[in-house]
Amino acid sequence: MFYTLEQIVARFGGRVMGDPLVRVNQISTLERATAAEISFLTNSKYHAQLVSTAAGAVILGEADADATAIPRIISSNPYAYFAKVSALLNPLPVISSGVHSSAVVSGTAKIDPGASVAAMATIGEGVVIGAGSIIGEGCCIGDRVVIGAGVRLYPRVVIYHDCVIGDNLIAHSGVVIGADGFGIAMDEGRWIKIPQIGRVVIGRDVEIGANTTIDRGALDDTVIEEGVKLDNQIQIAHNVRIGAHTAIAGCVGIAGSTTIGKYCQIGGSAGILGHLKIADRVVIASFTLIGKSIREAGSYAAIFPFSKMEDWRKNAVHLRHLDTMSDRLKKLEQLTTSKGHKV
Amino acid sequence: MFYTLEQIVARFGGRVMGDPLVRVNQISTLERATAAEISFLTNSKYHAQLVSTAAGAVILGEADADATAIPRIISSNPYAYFAKVSALLNPLPVISSGVHSSAVVSGTAKIDPGASVAAMATIGEGVVIGAGSIIGEGCCIGDRVVIGAGVRLYPRVVIYHDCVIGDNLIAHSGVVIGADGFGIAMDEGRWIKIPQIGRVVIGRDVEIGANTTIDRGALDDTVIEEGVKLDNQIQIAHNVRIGAHTAIAGCVGIAGSTTIGKYCQIGGSAGILGHLKIADRVVIASFTLIGKSIREAGSYAAIFPFSKMEDWRKNAVHLRHLDTMSDRLKKLEQLTTSKGHKV
Amino acid sequence: MFYTLEQIVARFGGRVMGDPLVRVNQISTLERATAAEISFLTNSKYHAQLVSTAAGAVILGEADADATAIPRIISSNPYAYFAKVSALLNPLPVISSGVHSSAVVSGTAKIDPGASVAAMATIGEGVVIGAGSIIGEGCCIGDRVVIGAGVRLYPRVVIYHDCVIGDNLIAHSGVVIGADGFGIAMDEGRWIKIPQIGRVVIGRDVEIGANTTIDRGALDDTVIEEGVKLDNQIQIAHNVRIGAHTAIAGCVGIAGSTTIGKYCQIGGSAGILGHLKIADRVVIASFTLIGKSIREAGSYAAIFPFSKMEDWRKNAVHLRHLDTMSDRLKKLEQLTTSKGHKV
Repeated sequence: MFYTLEQIVARFGGRVMGDPLVRVNQISTLERATAAEISFLTNSKYHAQLVSTAAGAVILGEADADATAIPRIISSNPYAYFAKVSALLNPLPVISSGVHSSAVVSGTAKIDPGASVAAMATIGEGVVIGAGSIIGEGCCIGDRVVIGAGVRLYPRVVIYHDCVIGDNLIAHSGVVIGADGFGIAMDEGRWIKIPQIGRVVIGRDVEIGANTTIDRGALDDTVIEEGVKLDNQIQIAHNVRIGAHTAIAGCVGIAGSTTIGKYCQIGGSAGILGHLKIADRVVIASFTLIGKSIREAGSYAAIFPFSKMEDWRKNAVHLRHLDTMSDRLKKLEQLTTSKGHKV
Repeated sequence: MFYTLEQIVARFGGRVMGDPLVRVNQISTLERATAAEISFLTNSKYHAQLVSTAAGAVILGEADADATAIPRIISSNPYAYFAKVSALLNPLPVISSGVHSSAVVSGTAKIDPGASVAAMATIGEGVVIGAGSIIGEGCCIGDRVVIGAGVRLYPRVVIYHDCVIGDNLIAHSGVVIGADGFGIAMDEGRWIKIPQIGRVVIGRDVEIGANTTIDRGALDDTVIEEGVKLDNQIQIAHNVRIGAHTAIAGCVGIAGSTTIGKYCQIGGSAGILGHLKIADRVVIASFTLIGKSIREAGSYAAIFPFSKMEDWRKNAVHLRHLDTMSDRLKKLEQLTTSKGHKV
Repeated sequence: MFYTLEQIVARFGGRVMGDPLVRVNQISTLERATAAEISFLTNSKYHAQLVSTAAGAVILGEADADATAIPRIISSNPYAYFAKVSALLNPLPVISSGVHSSAVVSGTAKIDPGASVAAMATIGEGVVIGAGSIIGEGCCIGDRVVIGAGVRLYPRVVIYHDCVIGDNLIAHSGVVIGADGFGIAMDEGRWIKIPQIGRVVIGRDVEIGANTTIDRGALDDTVIEEGVKLDNQIQIAHNVRIGAHTAIAGCVGIAGSTTIGKYCQIGGSAGILGHLKIADRVVIASFTLIGKSIREAGSYAAIFPFSKMEDWRKNAVHLRHLDTMSDRLKKLEQLTTSKGHKV
């Protein structure tokens, strides 16, 4: 399916420079784009690639409007514009509605006629599934789960009983929503289990990456607010609340009862301890453990910088003696000052 | 289902203060509890919440026995008491025994008539499943696996061939038990695979969180002793042994052939290198890598403290020069002493 | 099935010392081996175990050829030799070819008659599966996926549409290949999704551990070259390329668009940020974050050494003041030099 630049601009705004009738049917990188494809430049420092690209058209920011003669769309946010054009040129496959004959669906489930349940899926008692939602192959939906409209569960997602899923959730394969939180109490030398009777409640427009796990609450609910985007292999413990439009990269772990603000960004493999509060618009670097609440927006980090093994060995050994080093430094300062010098 | 405080104490011990005929049917937090609910206080510093709670009853430790006039149960271990009351008020759903018609079960499997096998499950040759065990939807049980009594596998657990599962295991969705350990040998520029011919052997009363993986042994077995509690997304490599009643938080990785003692507690995202021995009752902080054996009970840590990005940048740069700093400090000390000062 | 040492050497090379007609039917550790079993010594420092072993035969390196009188095979690479002997003595179970009656297979899929599709598997439109490949229970293969020959997918592997899988892949349970990469763009306060239209392309002789995830590319492909070995719970983001014969331990995360060279080795729970280039034959320690490209082969590390909690507390507090310590040191040096000393 081809679109002219004119048609694209009519849909998404921005303005055309050069021939508005140029037609494209796919989006690609500057290096690989062909004459039938549109590309984009989101960072002026890659200007050089504009010279050599074979793209039929490009999406540029205002600052780069005159950087090429290639037919182009100028947008104030070329990265978001690229996302929209890509979605236009790559529509999701249409999945026909209805329940596959191999699926096992409880008689008390209410599945919208416009929804789709794929092969090998199981749907529990009292489940509700909204219009246009797609339950992938082998998904398992527990009793009384409520799923909104326009939801897409890829194959083998599990949702435990009683959880609530907002409209337009995308959950990738291997996601587990609502497994028991890690609640145990020591009693005469044995751990006893604390029943996890809360739910997971997920707002609208959330995406959850492959093999990510979100535990149900111990007493109250675990809550993922609207617009949250979670990458793969994230672990969210019981009673966590994640604020709207927060984005979290892969392999992050968030311990129990922590509340994260809105519009936060958390880097890969970071961690946040339990019972903390993180303010809105906090940015946390990859590999950083947050061990105290953060009350102020801003960027935070705790990365140990890597080096060649032999350098690391020489340096790291002193980490166990920083306190002594500090004491020795203090003593030297006192000695030097006591002799009449101003320090 | 309602219980009076009197009935609860008859079952679990402790003593009632105030009206013993108060009836409760659910457990809740102090903030949210209603008159039909019982709550609990496990930390005296939250005393203030006792004043404002609407709970019909509370569970308290001895020290707090007189902190409120609300009808209450006094226990020497209020947290464990809370766990027991919650289990009483929130019984697991009864699952009827029998094999679902869609399950694929080998003719040589021996499934106790009191066990349950859900839809889409597959059960291999020679498998044994004990009384009261529940095999969830889409679980896959490999050939010759032996599963004890009272086991609960949530949907989509995989157990590879020949593994042995003790009574009362709870395994959450996405758990993989018995996949091949990571054994490879370099041979003329190519890795060749080392067959993993050990098993995973799991003791009684173990719980395993969602998407956790436990690899089978290379030659001998990987062993999880009784009462071990594992959170989500933990990776346990081949030939690891985890001692009884050890509890491990989410996202921890334990490398091959390491032995961990009894009653250890390991924080989230921590790691333990291979071929180590960790003593009983060792506590390891979150995000800490253990690179040497630990022979003594106690708490251990290695967390880089986080700070604002700009402060981190200023400070972290010196980590690559700690050795030089140490040398310079030594030189200054020598200089100062050589001039006749005592340091 | 028994083999004599003579037969083994005829197959794999090396030479026999002692009785060549000794017969073994299993491989085991030196501690546990019986007279019918062969064991091995790959590290001379475990010499002592040779004295006490009851093994019927052993595999040794040249340096240890005379360290025992037990019948033995001498090899220049005893560890690889052990791997080969173990594979000989522990052949994989033969799985009969054909499609299980419960599997749901698209009419347009082309499945080699010598391939096997197990119960509950689903195979999409236009899928191609090569000779001798085994699709385990509950696997889900998306539309147009191409799978080579000799592939073994353990139960509940998911491969999204259009991915390409080389010969002899071994993928363990819970692996997800081709889920969407984490691509989002901020647009007026809301994240919008960037369609992920690339594929995952996997070379021959790759192994992937349980619950590992490999995301499809945003525009171009994510590529895993031949002979790569991945442990469990690894996260590989979109557009990563991993060079041939690189081995990666469990729980590693690799961010988007990073290229890793050939014959690298990456330790457990390490991380690599996005858009980096790592040279061939780089070794990265466990728990190390790589934040810049590495242009030179060699070993790299960034591990914070652990200590007792109280020692850690005393020392770690200074990490936030390293810059001040460095300044104070410089000031002392200037003071000392300014008084006429040579430093």
